[in-house]
Amino acid sequence: MTTAKRDTYTPETLLSVAVQVFNERGYDGTSMEHLSRAAGISKSSIYHHVSGKEELLRRAVSRALDGLFEILDEEHARVGRAVERLEYVVRRMVEVLTSELPYVTLLLRVRGNTDTERWALERRRDFDHRVADLLKAAAADGDVRGDVEVRLATRLVFGMINSLVEWYRPDARGMGAREVADAVVVLVFGGLRQER
Amino acid sequence: MTTAKRDTYTPETLLSVAVQVFNERGYDGTSMEHLSRAAGISKSSIYHHVSGKEELLRRAVSRALDGLFEILDEEHARVGRAVERLEYVVRRMVEVLTSELPYVTLLLRVRGNTDTERWALERRRDFDHRVADLLKAAAADGDVRGDVEVRLATRLVFGMINSLVEWYRPDARGMGAREVADAVVVLVFGGLRQER
Repeated sequence: MTTAKRDTYTPETLLSVAVQVFNERGYDGTSMEHLSRAAGISKSSIYHHVSGKEELLRRAVSRALDGLFEILDEEHARVGRAVERLEYVVRRMVEVLTSELPYVTLLLRVRGNTDTERWALERRRDFDHRVADLLKAAAADGDVRGDVEVRLATRLVFGMINSLVEWYRPDARGMGAREVADAVVVLVFGGLRQER
Repeated sequence: MTTAKRDTYTPETLLSVAVQVFNERGYDGTSMEHLSRAAGISKSSIYHHVSGKEELLRRAVSRALDGLFEILDEEHARVGRAVERLEYVVRRMVEVLTSELPYVTLLLRVRGNTDTERWALERRRDFDHRVADLLKAAAADGDVRGDVEVRLATRLVFGMINSLVEWYRPDARGMGAREVADAVVVLVFGGLRQER
């Protein structure tokens, strides 16, 4: 059975199963035995693909981090007024969160007990700093309010965006990724209050 | 030793230790043995105060929930225009989160595996609905924008506020609870964009 099933497994499908188990049990609480049972293949078959659970964690959070960092290289994130670039980045962050939901969920739960976790936290901080720099530039242009400290504003905006992993589900009735992205952009930049 | 220490323990200090352990290890991952070691008293001394860890969980999340629900009974949350009442509630929520940080952190991590957890989730939902109703009333008054669906707006605003448990620390240099509350109110209602 194991041999027959192994052939249907690719590193990609194994990764997808691993991320699901990590999110359910926590990374620390997941053993190779749990992964083997969830994937329906033997541990030795898993070792055929990866060196162990830490490599699976690294691949999974890399997928989330790469998705986020690629945003910053896109043209609309590099060219134009800072506030417009910031708005583009916020919208694209929501798109990456919704399309890579389990991977970003795992990334946001990483706590820093292993080298891979510490590396992931470091890359998250880099990303946060890049967005904070954009916010600072927009404030310097006078396009973004200067009465909320940049680091605090960045944390609160990330708080709103990252909360998606707690409640957004792709199959939720009626609430699509597009609607969520529109709402986040409207609230982050315009706030709740109706302008008159 | 155990007897000597027991006398210095009150239900309040035991609760405070238990909440810390629950937040570190997760409620499911916490045994009476863990609580006994963290509190430095025997398990039987703990049973002198409470029936078990579920009672400690119930007391801890009750403290957070009571703090939140009491907001809704305060005069400024009951009297006046809906948008002003909503603003008051948002500010007070931040105040309760910062002052009862470990208790609210625990509440927000509850997942629903026991009766107490399901009861806590139910009360959280009640609170969310009460705030959503206020948002709906403010939109009906024309004071709050009508182009973001109420349930979605409520989730995003709660996402921003609740993110505090991830990064706010009372001893953080320079960033006080008051500054955070001001920033949340400004961003939730006015957004980032500088008005001209």
